[in-house]
Amino acid sequence: MLFFRNDYGQGCIQDILDLLQKINLENVTGYGMDPYCTKAKQMIQSYIPDLEVDIHFLVGGTITNQTIIKHILKPFEAVLACDSGHVSTHETGSIEATGHKVIMLPNNNGKLTPEVIKKCFNEHMLTYEHMVYPKLVYISNATEFGTVYTKKELMELRNICDELGLYLMMDGARLGQALTSNVCDYDLNDIAKWCDVFYIGGTKNGALMGEAVVITNPSLKPYFRFNMKQNGAMMAKGWLLGVQFIGLFTNDNYFTCGKHANKMSKMIQDELVSLKYPLFMKSDTNQVFPVVSEKQFQYLSQDIDFEVWDKREDMLIIRFVTSWCTKQEDVDILIQKLQEASALE
Amino acid sequence: MLFFRNDYGQGCIQDILDLLQKINLENVTGYGMDPYCTKAKQMIQSYIPDLEVDIHFLVGGTITNQTIIKHILKPFEAVLACDSGHVSTHETGSIEATGHKVIMLPNNNGKLTPEVIKKCFNEHMLTYEHMVYPKLVYISNATEFGTVYTKKELMELRNICDELGLYLMMDGARLGQALTSNVCDYDLNDIAKWCDVFYIGGTKNGALMGEAVVITNPSLKPYFRFNMKQNGAMMAKGWLLGVQFIGLFTNDNYFTCGKHANKMSKMIQDELVSLKYPLFMKSDTNQVFPVVSEKQFQYLSQDIDFEVWDKREDMLIIRFVTSWCTKQEDVDILIQKLQEASALE
Amino acid sequence: MLFFRNDYGQGCIQDILDLLQKINLENVTGYGMDPYCTKAKQMIQSYIPDLEVDIHFLVGGTITNQTIIKHILKPFEAVLACDSGHVSTHETGSIEATGHKVIMLPNNNGKLTPEVIKKCFNEHMLTYEHMVYPKLVYISNATEFGTVYTKKELMELRNICDELGLYLMMDGARLGQALTSNVCDYDLNDIAKWCDVFYIGGTKNGALMGEAVVITNPSLKPYFRFNMKQNGAMMAKGWLLGVQFIGLFTNDNYFTCGKHANKMSKMIQDELVSLKYPLFMKSDTNQVFPVVSEKQFQYLSQDIDFEVWDKREDMLIIRFVTSWCTKQEDVDILIQKLQEASALE
Amino acid sequence: MLFFRNDYGQGCIQDILDLLQKINLENVTGYGMDPYCTKAKQMIQSYIPDLEVDIHFLVGGTITNQTIIKHILKPFEAVLACDSGHVSTHETGSIEATGHKVIMLPNNNGKLTPEVIKKCFNEHMLTYEHMVYPKLVYISNATEFGTVYTKKELMELRNICDELGLYLMMDGARLGQALTSNVCDYDLNDIAKWCDVFYIGGTKNGALMGEAVVITNPSLKPYFRFNMKQNGAMMAKGWLLGVQFIGLFTNDNYFTCGKHANKMSKMIQDELVSLKYPLFMKSDTNQVFPVVSEKQFQYLSQDIDFEVWDKREDMLIIRFVTSWCTKQEDVDILIQKLQEASALE
Repeated sequence: MLFFRNDYGQGCIQDILDLLQKINLENVTGYGMDPYCTKAKQMIQSYIPDLEVDIHFLVGGTITNQTIIKHILKPFEAVLACDSGHVSTHETGSIEATGHKVIMLPNNNGKLTPEVIKKCFNEHMLTYEHMVYPKLVYISNATEFGTVYTKKELMELRNICDELGLYLMMDGARLGQALTSNVCDYDLNDIAKWCDVFYIGGTKNGALMGEAVVITNPSLKPYFRFNMKQNGAMMAKGWLLGVQFIGLFTNDNYFTCGKHANKMSKMIQDELVSLKYPLFMKSDTNQVFPVVSEKQFQYLSQDIDFEVWDKREDMLIIRFVTSWCTKQEDVDILIQKLQEASALE
Repeated sequence: MLFFRNDYGQGCIQDILDLLQKINLENVTGYGMDPYCTKAKQMIQSYIPDLEVDIHFLVGGTITNQTIIKHILKPFEAVLACDSGHVSTHETGSIEATGHKVIMLPNNNGKLTPEVIKKCFNEHMLTYEHMVYPKLVYISNATEFGTVYTKKELMELRNICDELGLYLMMDGARLGQALTSNVCDYDLNDIAKWCDVFYIGGTKNGALMGEAVVITNPSLKPYFRFNMKQNGAMMAKGWLLGVQFIGLFTNDNYFTCGKHANKMSKMIQDELVSLKYPLFMKSDTNQVFPVVSEKQFQYLSQDIDFEVWDKREDMLIIRFVTSWCTKQEDVDILIQKLQEASALE
Repeated sequence: MLFFRNDYGQGCIQDILDLLQKINLENVTGYGMDPYCTKAKQMIQSYIPDLEVDIHFLVGGTITNQTIIKHILKPFEAVLACDSGHVSTHETGSIEATGHKVIMLPNNNGKLTPEVIKKCFNEHMLTYEHMVYPKLVYISNATEFGTVYTKKELMELRNICDELGLYLMMDGARLGQALTSNVCDYDLNDIAKWCDVFYIGGTKNGALMGEAVVITNPSLKPYFRFNMKQNGAMMAKGWLLGVQFIGLFTNDNYFTCGKHANKMSKMIQDELVSLKYPLFMKSDTNQVFPVVSEKQFQYLSQDIDFEVWDKREDMLIIRFVTSWCTKQEDVDILIQKLQEASALE
Repeated sequence: MLFFRNDYGQGCIQDILDLLQKINLENVTGYGMDPYCTKAKQMIQSYIPDLEVDIHFLVGGTITNQTIIKHILKPFEAVLACDSGHVSTHETGSIEATGHKVIMLPNNNGKLTPEVIKKCFNEHMLTYEHMVYPKLVYISNATEFGTVYTKKELMELRNICDELGLYLMMDGARLGQALTSNVCDYDLNDIAKWCDVFYIGGTKNGALMGEAVVITNPSLKPYFRFNMKQNGAMMAKGWLLGVQFIGLFTNDNYFTCGKHANKMSKMIQDELVSLKYPLFMKSDTNQVFPVVSEKQFQYLSQDIDFEVWDKREDMLIIRFVTSWCTKQEDVDILIQKLQEASALE
């Protein structure tokens, strides 16, 4: 069975496993106050020369989104997010569980635009204290649809946030894939300047687990560790997470991983286009969204493990995801299967 | 200045004030355990001969919605509500503040339909524990747009709730107006059979304050008072609320109040129609929503206190609200002003 | 049956009822933005000449404590309170329901002391983010035991709060009784200078309901109305609360009420002392706590409605409470009963 | 530097690392729905032949306590715990953050007793809805003081919980050490019968991370995964946790680890006794609590990494912790240092 279901279906790059083995019996301080976390932070900081940032390592995406948002917002403040955003849909109400409304705005290819933010903000100001106060703009990059924000788009979001007094937060669960996408015209240092807080996803780009939260806005730095601990987001053996990011940022592994995943997906998407499969979305990264018929779906399902994204009348939107360890030979077989399926109906 | 801004702009019916004065120096037990609350409960129960219900008195609408929903839902369960529902918009995220997502569904003339409920439920079941569990259907009757559910519509909602295992809750902030609307073909006893919980609004129909929560589903009855107290919703001098409902249900005052408000609104709406003002919504109760031009708006604003509901290009949707104490002579003047304004562009 | 059970067992001073009647059919703006609330705020502000304060009217004690604390604290911050404090015990976990721990400290005659605050704070700093951050000192004045803080005690609390960076909040549910106690050597203006926030209780001192929150710390003023609304603490007919405080602060009614209640209690307590009843606590205000035998308890219960506070071996601590409307003749009969009971056993 | 600071200062048993390496590039289903989690659950279930249980794997102790308690309690219900319990002190208010009060009861050698539970419960029933409802008894085994509940004690706790309608939850962060303690006269199967829910701690007994939650009460089983996901406690690569417990329960590693840690500690504690150091607590497991003078503390600190537990006048309570990988030679050196220090006053 070929595996194109997701990008968290395997373990991690070998460098991480090797380091885990190497230090296994060392005596290390707990709760992320150890030399490995310190080193990992220094490695990440070195990619952000223009700002002094605070860095924290958390174990997974949902708890990271939850901890950041809980840390930042006052009780009556709300999140502005796409209706396709991860916090809007697939986190089982984890943001609402901390007391905050997620205002779901229409997405534009998976992205938020300044226009919908401004319209929403203005509507809320009309009745003021009778509605929540929209305060934090949440974006995912790459988005849940595989698209990537451009430099221009991010600067415009920063501008509208400045104009309206909003925070800008980037969910970077797939930031590695975004930064190595062909359409990306900026780097970590730029992101740090545009966002008040963002995170660098490890789980979906070569690590066993772990997201590196980068706080750039000085007013948001104090007391983050209190909220981490309260929220169950501080690991006793915190160095495990430091080790992940040492591994990822050694020899630019993180970018190599992202680039590989994107390259594998591009081959698939290019073939889909040439075979005239409709696309639900033109992806810039490691997720590809062809639209297939029921017969094609049945045929592909025989040998390939993938996800059904949505149904539209008699067609299905399916999703192929590649990762840091997707093999060229598997892509070749997938392409062959797609060719065969294209002949069906 | 004529007052058509809302239905909570004056005090209360004289019977309530008289009773307050009469018992002012009596010694009364606190926290709603007093003879006045008991009597008010008996009066309300007498309108629901077919079911034994639990009744609690709370001070206002937002805290009532919040307390009921917090009482009923498990942490991961969510509310299904219209995008025009009061809990969706104008309660400053009070439901989310208790940890629960409000899933906003498209309204049909201010109402929820079984179709959108079923579609939403099915979508949530697909990824199951990765999304919230939709569990409680919240409807307002009369709706925020002045419309009233019919018997057929409510029975269909009950059916879909039974089919999917959902609770049905009715926000009755304007239940008095709904029950006395021309389109209403049911009574309190029916509502008690269809809803797991509902409330009878006092604040907007003749009382100083107060909403009477009626719990009909036996499994939802235990421990409600714990949640009331924890939520700050239990008044020390609870009998004040009992007194409101004794006043409202003496001599059918509650229905007389609703009927009067509706009658005043109907005169206004009928005139609007005959004057060919467009209506944003055809109302069944005490709120009327004409669409006016900027010039008409300016003219009307000179002598009338009313609310702007929304703006659509160069037109304004405005709202006139009548109440239990709206005077015929004020309606006559309003109608005259509308006639004059209709001549303007 | 003589009523000495509590100080919220009757309605309100006649001035309030008269004003309610007088303005009953006026058209008044909602949500506390009306002229009556404005006037009431001006009347209260006039007692605090040295500071410009923000004033808000809420309906009862529990929701007031909850709203203030939720407004002030960050998620990981905690309340420091006496084990006898109202938020510690008799609010059904309403503070914890907003996510905040109430750290219960040993009381000294119902009061907090700088020593226990400092000890607690220092212990929490030891493991830092592994424990909550103690941030807000909650005191009641008069206390739940009827005692009153002295000027010296309050200034010392202010000093320790300044030293440790803590907020000082005073629950003034019985502030009228405290301010008119014989031991009180300060006024509202002083309290405003010592506390970051406090409230002036109406419910237990002559009003139908209502607590006036006074925010003195400028950094705590913004956005309070958002938290009020979200917490269900903003009444539609907000002017009802303005009317209460206009009534209370007209002709110094508030102080007359408190003084009367204290005077009645003092007569009872003096008699208890002269009859050699042990006291659980020497009260400075309108609550009196004699210790009686089972036989005495039985005797007194025949004609008097009062509360059992606690049991100690074979004795009972009982509580007599007087109020703004306790009648001299009732006190006379109570004293006679106490004399008769003192002969028993 | 000798390391006796804690039992989470090193990595994991080699079996776990080997398995991680072996399956690193396998394609595995996410979110704990994988064959490794299934196998680990079967292995644990095999130790509990008398009951069919539900098992879930979470990453660490605080989030496990938080998720379980949030899952079980209604909003107004509270936890009963020792004042020395982990949830009472060192989880930064994580339980209160979910809205629930932790009622702190006096400990008896780190344990809860039926007497204090019953007393507390009865006190809360007196004023009923004005106080939280005590509903879940939280115990740690081994306790935070290294002591272990006996069979008799656990059966008595079960009985009082049955009598009062309470849930019994065991925090088993150090359950491996408890079960292999000399004083332990029961096994996992017994615990499953006595507790409604408990967990088997991996982090502190040989795993990289992970706690295995065992739900035995059928009424508590449904929907746990919703609360896991909402609470950020469901790992994308959930099989990582399955792997930990496969490793721990292969060849009885879990018990071997616990036994070793206990044995090392016993040698230290026995020596302390023979050297006449006072003990803060006689420990049954892998934590030892000698009381030392300032001079002794200074001497020991030179070569040994350990924690100061508390200060009492001029003495210090310090803590030595051993683990699954503490070396005999390190214990020998520690003992030598203790001998030398004992000569220093």
